[in-house]
Amino acid sequence: MTAPLRLGIAGLGTVGAGVVKIVRQKANLLAVRSGRPIEIVAVSARSRNKDRGVNLSDYAWEDDPVALAKRDDVDVFVELMGGSDGPAKAATEAAIATGKHVVTANKALLAHHGQALAEAAEEAGSILRFEAAVAGGIPVIKALTEGLAGNDITRVMGVMNGTCNYILTRMQSAGLPYDEVFEEANQLGYLEADPNLDVGGIDAGHKLSLLSSIAFGTKVDFDNVHLEGIQRITIEDIEQAADMGFRIKLLGVAQMTGRGLEQRMSPCLVPEQSPLGQLEGGTNMVVIEGDQVEQIVLRGPGAGEGPTASAVMGDVMDIARGLSITTFGQPANTLSKAKAARADTPAPYYLRMSLLDKPGALAKVTSAMGDAGVSIDRMRQYQHETDTAPVLIVTHKTSRSALVAALTAMDGLDVLSAAPVALRIETV
Amino acid sequence: MTAPLRLGIAGLGTVGAGVVKIVRQKANLLAVRSGRPIEIVAVSARSRNKDRGVNLSDYAWEDDPVALAKRDDVDVFVELMGGSDGPAKAATEAAIATGKHVVTANKALLAHHGQALAEAAEEAGSILRFEAAVAGGIPVIKALTEGLAGNDITRVMGVMNGTCNYILTRMQSAGLPYDEVFEEANQLGYLEADPNLDVGGIDAGHKLSLLSSIAFGTKVDFDNVHLEGIQRITIEDIEQAADMGFRIKLLGVAQMTGRGLEQRMSPCLVPEQSPLGQLEGGTNMVVIEGDQVEQIVLRGPGAGEGPTASAVMGDVMDIARGLSITTFGQPANTLSKAKAARADTPAPYYLRMSLLDKPGALAKVTSAMGDAGVSIDRMRQYQHETDTAPVLIVTHKTSRSALVAALTAMDGLDVLSAAPVALRIETV
Repeated sequence: MTAPLRLGIAGLGTVGAGVVKIVRQKANLLAVRSGRPIEIVAVSARSRNKDRGVNLSDYAWEDDPVALAKRDDVDVFVELMGGSDGPAKAATEAAIATGKHVVTANKALLAHHGQALAEAAEEAGSILRFEAAVAGGIPVIKALTEGLAGNDITRVMGVMNGTCNYILTRMQSAGLPYDEVFEEANQLGYLEADPNLDVGGIDAGHKLSLLSSIAFGTKVDFDNVHLEGIQRITIEDIEQAADMGFRIKLLGVAQMTGRGLEQRMSPCLVPEQSPLGQLEGGTNMVVIEGDQVEQIVLRGPGAGEGPTASAVMGDVMDIARGLSITTFGQPANTLSKAKAARADTPAPYYLRMSLLDKPGALAKVTSAMGDAGVSIDRMRQYQHETDTAPVLIVTHKTSRSALVAALTAMDGLDVLSAAPVALRIETV
Repeated sequence: MTAPLRLGIAGLGTVGAGVVKIVRQKANLLAVRSGRPIEIVAVSARSRNKDRGVNLSDYAWEDDPVALAKRDDVDVFVELMGGSDGPAKAATEAAIATGKHVVTANKALLAHHGQALAEAAEEAGSILRFEAAVAGGIPVIKALTEGLAGNDITRVMGVMNGTCNYILTRMQSAGLPYDEVFEEANQLGYLEADPNLDVGGIDAGHKLSLLSSIAFGTKVDFDNVHLEGIQRITIEDIEQAADMGFRIKLLGVAQMTGRGLEQRMSPCLVPEQSPLGQLEGGTNMVVIEGDQVEQIVLRGPGAGEGPTASAVMGDVMDIARGLSITTFGQPANTLSKAKAARADTPAPYYLRMSLLDKPGALAKVTSAMGDAGVSIDRMRQYQHETDTAPVLIVTHKTSRSALVAALTAMDGLDVLSAAPVALRIETV
């Protein structure tokens, strides 16, 4: 049996504690599977005296994660602190500079600095892996980078923020408004310190940008992910979409088109009977399409101690077994800079509007749509509430530009109480 | 860039031709991803002159796959011939004996000789991988062996024979009897030369035995997979199960219990709204449960040129990148011999019977069940057809032994026209 693989763990929150538990409780299993013992030699966190439910007395303590990263007795620096800059970045850089491998769960760090870190790691001969950064316990980075390496990937999509999916499915099942469920999620500790990271789609956008890079061999380009959060989704949207056979999901889609790389993270409608439509609560789902494999769907818990620690340990075990692979599946200096394309792949759209009680109002709206070249697949007008009537329209496939033209024309008609809600419909 | 990785491919059917196409058409992509060129140096198949839609003129031809496996210029022997013995086994052994790595899609070979081959490979320092042997394009071997290596696996289950799933879903959607759809599948070329491999559950049982070995660290034990095929499933079973909200699937389940390792491949009922229930046609699904990751569900095409070649190439790319891992996720000589347990984990059951038109008949049946300790969750009696009436019963969770006692008692009552059909209900 070879020498032990020695871990230094920075960050002892839920995930860090989960990793410590696995290493302590499964020592034999991990050693027999990887061919060498996995050991923790040192840890670091903000507060030394907090009770984390795990015994840390066997490990050296470092107040400074950078000092931990530089220790001579550490083979793998496990970064579980979070944050795109600050200590996480400094410590990761220090680890790479001193020849350590790095395993991180930090999507923000990689979405912003992935290219530079991958280049540095590859120059130093270090492995930098991040399975836990995307879709929690689902081994999706491995599937995409390794299992599907014989494919030209055509599209990657998924629901990758469990908190948003919790909020949207809870609104639907309990019939509660957004604000109330948001507060509930907050009480349950489901939200990031800055909730906009979740509900604004930023966290999920980070993840999508990492998958894009592997899928299309392009430099991580988070700045060109078109981001739209779930904050404006109302219980009426959810209930009326359900009435038409749809669910609303915060859905990420990345695809290479003739116009460039399209990356978007936005609330979309999906058929309620589809795998995405049936995703409840904090569960994540990633759909990968390749020219050979057709379509693979991966589903599992998107967060939590066990699932995220499972993903971290997958990377650690790979390194223990001698894995030799680049961060994004090809050398970082061969990744190309993708031309960013605005999402314009045609799709059906769902429109919700409040029609004023005026003669000919509906005819004006439908004419405006027809004039813009947007044709209607299905429409429902509900009974008037005081002076407006809710109208739902599902269009046939249309380009985004035609839709925008229709919405602009409708805006000038004076028969709607507000601008319509327009959500893209994705079918998988 | 390192030296090329040189492949020798034995077997040029659909999958073999698919692999040749990928290597030819994606040379640049594969090289940039793996860091070295992937080349084919020699091929072998039964007939040299058959048109396979690919240009083979650049490659050496070997009539004998064993000679191919022994060639000095081959680094990886790709075995796509099939069959548990004969040339596939001889050539794989020859490849290992002469220090080659092996990539195979051959579930029968590994289900019968996996232990011996893995031991030989590990002694010789060769890598032996088989992603394409289980669930077609889904990278499930990788997920289980590598991605989830930090878990104690608690249960693995799945639908892993696309032909059976095609037959069952086609029977349902077209309302056709088994024999007719079986013939249809035969015409479409979906069936193995020996159809019993498919419809008898043997092929899927092979796959399950391989997943079990990785999941539980046990020697492959195909002989103790409890096998039941789909040949006795009637259109009435399917329609009446649907009437109770279920679908029938040929479902494999492997779990470690206090009594030993339970492995079964049999037709089961699953809720129609569940991920397994919604699986149509040739699609496969594997569910993996671990103590850390909770539950991962993987779904994708179970067969076909592109998906299977994708899985083969995943293994080839791993080897090109320097993968170093044992066949079943831990050294073959550390795999334990599992005690085989008969499936007795309690479950609800679905019973279908034809009740004779006699007074008190239903009371006798239900009393017999009650006396055996099997309680009824739901029951439906349909109108009499001539002299019998169909009766469907869904039980509460019961042990298999209690169920067998109930069935035995019912057999002696003289109120049923035949022994009831009893199918286990699995909920995921």
